[in-house]
Amino acid sequence: MTKYTIGADFGTLSGRVVLLNLETGELIAQAVKKYTHEVMDETLPDGTKLGPDWALQYPTDYLEVLYEGVPAVLSQSGVAKDDVIGMSIDFTACTMLPTDKDFVPLCLRPEFEHQPHAYIKLWKHHAAQKQANQLNATARQLGEDFLVRYGGKISSEWFFPKIMQIQQEAPDIYSKAACFCEATDWVNFRLCGEFRRNSCTAGYKAIWHKRKGYPADSFFAALGIPDVRKKLPGSIIPIGRRQGTLTPEMAEKLGLTTKVAVAAANVDAHVSLPAVGVTDAGKMLMIMGTSTCDIMLGKSEKMVPGMCGVVEDGVIEGYFGYEAGQSCVGDHFDWFATNNVPPAYFEEAGRQKKDIQEYLTEKAGSLKPGESGLLALDWWNGNRSVLVDVDLTGMMLGMTLATKPEEVYRALIEATAYGKRMIIDTFTENGVPIEELYACGGISWKNPLMMQIYADVTNRPIHISANAQTPALGAAMFGAVAAGKAAGGFDTIEAAAKKIGKTNRLYRPIPENVAIYQRLYAEYKTLHDYFGRGDNDVMKRLKTLKAEVK
Amino acid sequence: MTKYTIGADFGTLSGRVVLLNLETGELIAQAVKKYTHEVMDETLPDGTKLGPDWALQYPTDYLEVLYEGVPAVLSQSGVAKDDVIGMSIDFTACTMLPTDKDFVPLCLRPEFEHQPHAYIKLWKHHAAQKQANQLNATARQLGEDFLVRYGGKISSEWFFPKIMQIQQEAPDIYSKAACFCEATDWVNFRLCGEFRRNSCTAGYKAIWHKRKGYPADSFFAALGIPDVRKKLPGSIIPIGRRQGTLTPEMAEKLGLTTKVAVAAANVDAHVSLPAVGVTDAGKMLMIMGTSTCDIMLGKSEKMVPGMCGVVEDGVIEGYFGYEAGQSCVGDHFDWFATNNVPPAYFEEAGRQKKDIQEYLTEKAGSLKPGESGLLALDWWNGNRSVLVDVDLTGMMLGMTLATKPEEVYRALIEATAYGKRMIIDTFTENGVPIEELYACGGISWKNPLMMQIYADVTNRPIHISANAQTPALGAAMFGAVAAGKAAGGFDTIEAAAKKIGKTNRLYRPIPENVAIYQRLYAEYKTLHDYFGRGDNDVMKRLKTLKAEVK
Repeated sequence: MTKYTIGADFGTLSGRVVLLNLETGELIAQAVKKYTHEVMDETLPDGTKLGPDWALQYPTDYLEVLYEGVPAVLSQSGVAKDDVIGMSIDFTACTMLPTDKDFVPLCLRPEFEHQPHAYIKLWKHHAAQKQANQLNATARQLGEDFLVRYGGKISSEWFFPKIMQIQQEAPDIYSKAACFCEATDWVNFRLCGEFRRNSCTAGYKAIWHKRKGYPADSFFAALGIPDVRKKLPGSIIPIGRRQGTLTPEMAEKLGLTTKVAVAAANVDAHVSLPAVGVTDAGKMLMIMGTSTCDIMLGKSEKMVPGMCGVVEDGVIEGYFGYEAGQSCVGDHFDWFATNNVPPAYFEEAGRQKKDIQEYLTEKAGSLKPGESGLLALDWWNGNRSVLVDVDLTGMMLGMTLATKPEEVYRALIEATAYGKRMIIDTFTENGVPIEELYACGGISWKNPLMMQIYADVTNRPIHISANAQTPALGAAMFGAVAAGKAAGGFDTIEAAAKKIGKTNRLYRPIPENVAIYQRLYAEYKTLHDYFGRGDNDVMKRLKTLKAEVK
Repeated sequence: MTKYTIGADFGTLSGRVVLLNLETGELIAQAVKKYTHEVMDETLPDGTKLGPDWALQYPTDYLEVLYEGVPAVLSQSGVAKDDVIGMSIDFTACTMLPTDKDFVPLCLRPEFEHQPHAYIKLWKHHAAQKQANQLNATARQLGEDFLVRYGGKISSEWFFPKIMQIQQEAPDIYSKAACFCEATDWVNFRLCGEFRRNSCTAGYKAIWHKRKGYPADSFFAALGIPDVRKKLPGSIIPIGRRQGTLTPEMAEKLGLTTKVAVAAANVDAHVSLPAVGVTDAGKMLMIMGTSTCDIMLGKSEKMVPGMCGVVEDGVIEGYFGYEAGQSCVGDHFDWFATNNVPPAYFEEAGRQKKDIQEYLTEKAGSLKPGESGLLALDWWNGNRSVLVDVDLTGMMLGMTLATKPEEVYRALIEATAYGKRMIIDTFTENGVPIEELYACGGISWKNPLMMQIYADVTNRPIHISANAQTPALGAAMFGAVAAGKAAGGFDTIEAAAKKIGKTNRLYRPIPENVAIYQRLYAEYKTLHDYFGRGDNDVMKRLKTLKAEVK
C-alpha cells in the first residue's frame, strides 16, 4: 500500500502544505494559505505603533495554515488518513517568541496583547542592531571563541540580540517569559505536545554547540541577561530525528491519526538539501530568492572566514552543516528593473508580451562575457559572506556613453556570480571543498542565463532542483524518516534523498566563457579586497556622512 | 551716430550671424542657418562611403551662412550698411582642409570631388587616432619639448594627425595640396582676400609657439611629412588684431561696405572670454555643453599637467591663454535620462509638463549634499583634463536597494563638479591661480542646481554669461576692436569687454555645503588617483577585453 507524508513550509508571508507520495516521489497535492495577520511592521492588531525596522508575526496564523492546509491536501488527493505516516515542518529563522511556562505565547495572553515585545519577532525584524553590536563587542572583549563559528559576527537577526532587545526595552516581558523559542519549535510543540529544540536553529541562530552547549553564564551576565539559560527549556534534538507523534487533539484537527510521526523542526534553507539529493560533502546548495542562502556539508569543523555558521548535525546528522549567504540577489535585479530601465524597454517588452526581467535577460543573453566592459561589486545590500559587513554598498565601473540597460543588468548578474565564487573559493581554501553546485528557488528555474553565468564564473556544474517546492518537499522527506522504514518511510535521510531527491537540469561550464570570467573575477577580487578589506573605506565614510546630513 | 559690428559663430551643425549695437552693448538681430551638407559622416554628396569615425564638412556651407545671415540681420534691424564698422568670425576647431595654391578647397575642384580626403575634416573627425598615436610616440622618442605644452599628448582631433591621415591614405591629395588650413582662416581669407593664420588655432591645434614656431623639419620628416611646412603659407597674426577689410566682392554679397574691418579669425570657446567681461588672469570661463571647455589667462607660461594647451596671444594678446576640458558633461546627463530613468518618472514629468531633465533636477535639488551616499568618477567619455586618457571609463559607488534615479543624477552632476575642482586645483598648484569662475552655454542657464553644486564643490563664485549667444557676441566685440576707436569701435578688447561683456547671475558657495563637498572631494581624489594614475588599471583592461571579445 502506498504511503504518504506531509511537509509544511512556513515562509515570510504564507505557509504551504504538501502531500508526498513515497512510492513515486511526487508531490501530489498542495495548499497555500496567507497569514491572517501578514507581517506586522507598522502596528499591532490593536493599532499600537511599531518602531522602524520592526517585523512581527502572530502565532495562530501558523496553526491556521495546518488546520486548513492538511485537510485540503487530503481531500484534493483522496488519500486516506491511515496512509499518512509522517510529517515535518520547516520555517523562516530566526523567528522567535516569548512564551509562558506552558508554552503559551505571551502575545496570546490578554494582559500582554498591547505589548509589541510579547509578539513573534520575524527573521527580518531589524530593530536589534544596537543589541547585536553590544553582543559582538562583549564577545570580542571577553574573547569568546564562538565568534569564529559565525564568521566573526552575530547578526541582529538572530536569537540573543532579539532577547536582549526585549530585556532592554520591555523588562517586564522579559521577566514574565518562561521560555524564548524559535517559532518552528513552538509549532512542533503544538503538533506533538512535547517541547524540544532542533539542532539547526539552536546551532545557527542561538550560539549553541553540540559539544560546548550555549555560551557561559558569565557571558550572558555581561549582556544583562544573566538568567536567560533558565528561559531556554527543552532538550536539543538533531535534525532528522523523530520528535514524537501527533497529539490526539492535533490529529483530529488535521484529519490525521495519532500514529503520524513528527520530525524535529527545521529551517527552510537547511531542509532543502536532501530534496535535491544531496546528503554528503563537496556539494553546495544555493537557495536563490531575494537573497541567496548557501548550505553545504563538511566532514569536520573548519573555521571558514565569513561563513554564517557551522553546526554539527545542523543539516544532516553526522555532518557539519555550513551556511553562507549573499544578501542581494533577486532584490538586486528587482531594484534595477524598477528604478533604472527606460520606458522604451517596457514598451518593447509589452509588445513582445514579456515580463521586463525576461526581456532584459533575453537582451543580456545576446552579449558575450566581457563585451559590456562593465564590472560591479554585488554589495547593494551589504555583504554577508565572506566580508560580513552590512555597511558596504554597491560599485560599478566601466560605463561609457554607449552603455545600455541590458549591459548593466548582465553586470549585476555577473557581480552576484563573482560573489558566489568568492564564497566557494574561501570555503575550498579553508578545508571545505566544493566541487558541484545545486540550486533551487524561483530564479534557478526562471533565469537560465543567470545559471549559465554562475556555472561559467564558478567553473562548476550546477544541478537545478526538479521541484519548485523544494523546502516543502524536504520537510515531507524528513517526515518519512521520522516515520521509519517499518512504517513505509525511510530509516535515513540518505535513503530518502536517494529515492526522492531530484534535479532536472544541469548547467555545465563553457570553457571559453570560463577563461574570460577568470580574468574578470581577478579584477573583481582586487576591487573586493580594496573596498571590502580596509584599503579604502570610502563606502563606510559615505554612509556615515549620509547619516550625518539626514 | 551709433555704430554696429557683426559676429558670425560657426558651430557644428549651423552658423549664426548677430548684429551688435556698440552703444548699448545689445545684440539687436540674429540669423541662424543650418549647413546645407550638414555633417557628412556616412557618405560624400556623390554617395562615396566614408569610414567609421569620419566627419566632414563642405566649404560653401559656411559662405552661405554669411550670404544669407548678414543681409538678414541688416534687414531685421534696419541698420544702414555705413554704420557697420567691423566683423569677426569664430569657428569650431580643429576643422581643417587642403586647398590649392589659390586657396581653393580641393574638394571644390571637380577632379577631387569624389575623394573624401579632399574635404573639410570637422573637429570631431576621429579617424586619425592611429596617426595621433604615431605622432605622440615619435615626439616622445625624439624628446620634443612641445608635448608638455599640450598636457603630454596631441589629440587625434588636431591639425597634424589629420594631415598625416591624408598623407598616408591619400598621398595624391597630400601632394596636390598647396595649403592646409583651419576653416576659420579660410573663411577669413574669403572675407578679406588675404590669407593669414590666427595665433589661436595655430597655437592650440597646430603645435605652433610664438617664440619657437612649428616643430623642426626633422620631426615632420620622422612623421613622413617632411615638406609639410611648405604647405603652411600665411603669416600668423595674434588674436585681436585686424586682418584686413572686406573685399569689394564680399562687401557686395553681404550688403556691407569695403570699410568693414575684419579681425583675425577665432575659435568658439576662446572668443567667449571677453564676452563675459574677462580679459585678465585668475578667472576661468567654462563653456558648458555636451562637453565643457575651460579657458583662462595667465601672465606667464607654465606647464600644467593635463592641460589641453597653453598659447601666448592664444586668447587675448599679451596673455598666455590656457585651455582645459571635460569630455562628458551634458552628454552625461543625456545618457542618464535616455537609458536609466523609469517610466514612472516620465509619466510624472509629463503630468507636470516638465522636461525629464528639469524634473530630475528638481528632485535632485531637494537632496542635501552627501545625502545620496553616492560618489562617481566623471569618466563616461574618458578624461580630458587632467589625466588626458580616453581609455578611462565611468565609476559609481554607494548604491543601495533604496537608491533613486534622482540620487544617481545628482551624483553625476557632482562628479563633473569634482572633475572641475581637480582642474582648478591642478592649475592653481602649478602657478596658474584661479579665483573666480565664469560660465556660458546652455547648461549654465538651464540648470541652477548644477551651477550651485559647482560653486559649492569648487568653493568659488560663479558668474553666468548674460548673453545666450556668448561666442557670437565675443566675435562681434573683436570686430569692434578690429575697426578701432576712431571708427566708433574700441582700441582694445579690454575696453570692449569693460563696456559690453556682461554676466547676470552669481552663484556664491554656501559654506555648509562647501564643508561637506570638501570631504566628498577628498574621496573623489583618492579614487581618481587610484583608477586614473596606474594603481589599478582595471578600466583599461576591461576595455581591452571588450575589444578582444567583440
